[in-house]
Parts: sequence; structure tokens; C-alpha cells
Amino acid sequence: MKFEITQIGTIFSPYKTKDSCPIQGIATPEGLGRVEVFPEYEEALETIETFSHIILFYIFDRAGEVILSRPTFLDDISHGVFASRHPCRPNGIGMSIVKLEKRKRNILEVSEIDVLDNTPLIDIKPYVPRFDYRKNANNGWVEGKDIREKPMNRE
Amino acid sequence: MKFEITQIGTIFSPYKTKDSCPIQGIATPEGLGRVEVFPEYEEALETIETFSHIILFYIFDRAGEVILSRPTFLDDISHGVFASRHPCRPNGIGMSIVKLEKRKRNILEVSEIDVLDNTPLIDIKPYVPRFDYRKNANNGWVEGKDIREKPMNRE
Repeated sequence: MKFEITQIGTIFSPYKTKDSCPIQGIATPEGLGRVEVFPEYEEALETIETFSHIILFYIFDRAGEVILSRPTFLDDISHGVFASRHPCRPNGIGMSIVKLEKRKRNILEVSEIDVLDNTPLIDIKPYVPRFDYRKNANNGWVEGKDIREKPMNRE
Repeated sequence: MKFEITQIGTIFSPYKTKDSCPIQGIATPEGLGRVEVFPEYEEALETIETFSHIILFYIFDRAGEVILSRPTFLDDISHGVFASRHPCRPNGIGMSIVKLEKRKRNILEVSEIDVLDNTPLIDIKPYVPRFDYRKNANNGWVEGKDIREKPMNRE
């Protein structure tokens, strides 16, 4: 079955190239971005300013070839793309938790961002620790992997 | 801009109706489900079994009318749909963190599920507390709201 998704806004960030974009937002608290929700959706932002953190959903619009299992930014061993956050995946949907600094009408200023500049936004949900934190969760294969520079030529 | 999303599998759960479906999975650890990833994507699951928790992305295929700001399951005051997890939203994409009990090839047995039976799956990502936990995050307007029965006739 196929579904159609419509862009609802645009994410702007300091990261113009994949190489400059951090692996995860939590690694770069200084990454500032701006989320422009299209004005026709402004009403859908009501009370979002009560949250300190929000989750952005977007399209990896510059992702490369989809390979189902491959080495990742954090590991040279192959992992299935559903076992990693790799951008080149069937249905290239990205998810980033960012800090909401300020809302002005349909514009959100955010920090801790790890998204490429000019990325199509498709949804926003509040980050709610009450619902989203799992105290007993492990880090799977990511445990102990150092946040490192992206390996050369690795999509 | 429009994007096309393709179903990659199906989520099965004990919840046949919206009324029976819990508000959040964390509220019903006993909710058992089965995720059948289509066999052609099995390779994309490699090493997923190293994670205790995974994030399911799916389509709210039985959601009602999209109203940009509305009362929610947890509150009788209106909130913008981007400030809530409400299923009736522009681009009806759902996200649920579930506990991965077991993988057998392309079949995942999960618990803590809050998804309607027979829901189209569109992506899976690992839940990684190292990346996904924000210690200083607040609960926004959700703070102090009791998990309650879904109000009658509320979509």
C-alpha cells in the first residue's frame, strides 16, 4: 500500500552539507535551527511552547542509495537499516529530538539540531519524558560506540 | 511538495477498536503485539535483536477528521495537534516505542504496544537512550494529567 505525505514546513540549520551535519543532535547542543511551519498550519502549534523539547519528523531528501544492511557512521560492521538511524532507508523519514527555544507564531527556534539545512518538515510531536523514556532500555549495538567523525565516503 | 511512502510490513495487536486501544503503550506493559516486516526487508532487521526497545512508525489509517487544534484524550482544553500525539493530524504518522521481546527472521514479538490491530508499518528505528533521553525535558501541558479512559465520542 502507498501513502502520500505532504510537506508542512521547512527546517533551516547551519548544516549545508552531509559532512558538516552531526551524527546526533545531542552531540552538538550549540546547533541552532529554525523551523518554519507553513502559515496555514499555525493553529496546530497551539500550546507547543509549554514543551521544552519537541520531535521533528522530516524527509531525508538528499539521502543516497538504500542498502538494507550496511556499515553505519558509528560502526564499521554492518547493521540493518531498521537497527540504525541511517538516513538511506526505505521510506526516508527522519526523526530528531530538539530543544524548543522560542516560538513566534509559525516559527520555532530550536537548538540541539542535527538536520540538513532546507529539509522538508512533515510532522511535529511533543517530546514527553512521561511517555518516551524507558528507564530499563539498553543501547543495543550502539553501547560504547564513540561519537566520531563520519567515516570518509560513507553515505 | 509531496512524498510517497510505501508500507513495509504490518503491526498486529490485541486492539481491534479505537476505544480499546490504550492512550500510550507505557500505560499497558501487558499489551502484546506482533510486527511482520515484509520478507523482502528482512535483511534490514540485522542486529535489531541487540536492542531492548524499538520505535515503530506507522500510518494512522483509521484516523478521523483533521482539526488543527482540539481537545485531546488527556485534556479537555484544546491543544494544537503538533503539541499533542493526537492521531488525526496532517500526515497521519504514528510513533510508538515498544519493547522488543523476540525476533524470528522477519517477525518481531513486542510488548507495551498501543497500536490498532492491522496497522500499516512504514519504518522501524532502534530506541537508543544515549540519543533519545533528554534529562532536563519537561512534560509541557501533559504534566500532571492523569492517564484516563478516552472521553466518549472523542476522536
